[in-house]
Amino acid sequence: MERREKFFEKISKNNIDGLFVSCISNIRYLTNFSGEEGYLLSTQNELLLIVDSRFIEQAKKETFTGVDVLEYSGKINDFIENLIKERHIHWLGIEKERISFNIYSNIENFGSIKLVPLSDFVETIRMVKDYDEIKNISSACKISSKSFNEALQFIKEGVTERDVVAELEYRFKKNGGEKPSFDTIVASGERGAFPHGVASDKKIEAHEPIVIDFGVFYMGYASDTTRTVCIGEPPEEFKNYYRAVQEAQNIGQYFAKAGLKASELDKKVREYLKEKGLSFGHGLGHGVGLEIHEPPYINANSTYTLEENMAITIEPGLYFPDRFGMRLEDTLIVKNDGTDQLIDLTHELIIA
Amino acid sequence: MERREKFFEKISKNNIDGLFVSCISNIRYLTNFSGEEGYLLSTQNELLLIVDSRFIEQAKKETFTGVDVLEYSGKINDFIENLIKERHIHWLGIEKERISFNIYSNIENFGSIKLVPLSDFVETIRMVKDYDEIKNISSACKISSKSFNEALQFIKEGVTERDVVAELEYRFKKNGGEKPSFDTIVASGERGAFPHGVASDKKIEAHEPIVIDFGVFYMGYASDTTRTVCIGEPPEEFKNYYRAVQEAQNIGQYFAKAGLKASELDKKVREYLKEKGLSFGHGLGHGVGLEIHEPPYINANSTYTLEENMAITIEPGLYFPDRFGMRLEDTLIVKNDGTDQLIDLTHELIIA
Repeated sequence: MERREKFFEKISKNNIDGLFVSCISNIRYLTNFSGEEGYLLSTQNELLLIVDSRFIEQAKKETFTGVDVLEYSGKINDFIENLIKERHIHWLGIEKERISFNIYSNIENFGSIKLVPLSDFVETIRMVKDYDEIKNISSACKISSKSFNEALQFIKEGVTERDVVAELEYRFKKNGGEKPSFDTIVASGERGAFPHGVASDKKIEAHEPIVIDFGVFYMGYASDTTRTVCIGEPPEEFKNYYRAVQEAQNIGQYFAKAGLKASELDKKVREYLKEKGLSFGHGLGHGVGLEIHEPPYINANSTYTLEENMAITIEPGLYFPDRFGMRLEDTLIVKNDGTDQLIDLTHELIIA
Repeated sequence: MERREKFFEKISKNNIDGLFVSCISNIRYLTNFSGEEGYLLSTQNELLLIVDSRFIEQAKKETFTGVDVLEYSGKINDFIENLIKERHIHWLGIEKERISFNIYSNIENFGSIKLVPLSDFVETIRMVKDYDEIKNISSACKISSKSFNEALQFIKEGVTERDVVAELEYRFKKNGGEKPSFDTIVASGERGAFPHGVASDKKIEAHEPIVIDFGVFYMGYASDTTRTVCIGEPPEEFKNYYRAVQEAQNIGQYFAKAGLKASELDKKVREYLKEKGLSFGHGLGHGVGLEIHEPPYINANSTYTLEENMAITIEPGLYFPDRFGMRLEDTLIVKNDGTDQLIDLTHELIIA
């Protein structure tokens, strides 16, 4: 499998004898195991998936050919220590942002081992998606767009933000999705000014913009979309701002293509808004895949360059405290000559 | 506030100058901040909540009196380093299972600081619930029981496990819950033998037992319940096993009270099953609160003793690979003379 070839090649390039993988999404990527708990120890040419009795049957069924599934009972530390000694691993990479101090210090005490803290070792391999991954992200996007269209009819004066979430997430499952890829945001009126306004018991009123940020997992892969909705006409002043966000989104999608620096893309969108005296405080976008937020991050400090078949979001927004907010977000596949749009929903303000 | 008094007393007893709190549930417990991201630095008498611009308004609105909310921009490391220096913190506790190696090593490099790795420092304070917490857990249990009763009518031959989840979780939200407290388990027929059988696309058939393990958050607090359901009569051999699980559950609830060792409770239930040649591979139960699984863990190796107003689950089950499984689980409040049952659902096998 190509992803494992890339992985072992990187192990070799980094001059390590193996990697201890703590991040469950990285474990899934390398082994196809979809359970909640497990450890993965790689050598230079082996993948050893270690699970307890609860997950052993599932692991054996799911894993790619070539992955060795091992069941531990008793102390996980002893089990891993034995594996490391048997395999004569000396330089062992660890995922420094993903491993807990506790597990780190246990492994460090195994004697003659040297731990090599690494960042985003597997995550950066995951950035460029293969055929199956793009199919799954695309399906997740289709399910979420369809569900959103169906849930729109329930957005009426007097329903709560949480009611909208109930209708939307119900349809996620009925349309074949696994579960929401994050806590669905439904932020109406003043609450729209919070970029992370998780749905509340607030009742939705006419003429107030409603920011709805939603996504679903399909076969483990996430979608991520935002649309802004209004019951009836929004305030007049809102309309100009919304057009600016639409244009910002267009600019982002116009320039995004393989070869462009992520920071450059972020800059192009911000420059347009800046000319109008507008700005927003979050990044322009992020990678999406087995996790809802993953590399490449698209912001001013990003060091990534866009590559073909990366899955990314572009999501400019504007936030006016105590008044309203708005955001437009799509999930896109980067191509050599542009992007493939996976979200089949209008960019216009949606009048419910 | 009592919880903070306990916390500062424990800081003082441990001879540390403060604690760096990484676990977001612990942060919520001490500050009432319900956002997804933040850091908490305590001194011996201060709680400093550190958030970025996305969460600053929410943090200011939500936090208990006496919590200082600080906004950082730029490098979080520099910000924390300055706080630590200003406060003359030398011995700083860290949550060793909860802090990433990366953050640990950044703080360790701050110079004259000594880090003290601690386990479950806040979690063990959280074990005994106060009045509001019990009210919230109780509400979560009511919402989940009501939703379960409503969803039962949708369990029919030919619907998928995922359909059942869609109906149940829809009702969670309509009945005032926030979101599922874990991935709802609907495991029918042979899949019931997986203790962690997250719902699949499998269609439910008549006469096969269906294990449904479900819970919801209310005001941040979780419920946790399992019931076993069957469309029509289950296999004859199933019935005896099910009676054993019912009796195991009765025994657990009969003996559970303040003063009993958690390991002793686990043992009493297992001894009963052992006499019948039966056993199960997971713990008897666990604490429940801001997290779905938290101390006190109730298993053979547990060192906890039950105390009044702990919120716990008791959940014996039996699993027969390639045949079926069954489990009964309640959320209970430990009292001096027994337990308060929070789940208003029959212990009988439920015939849908």
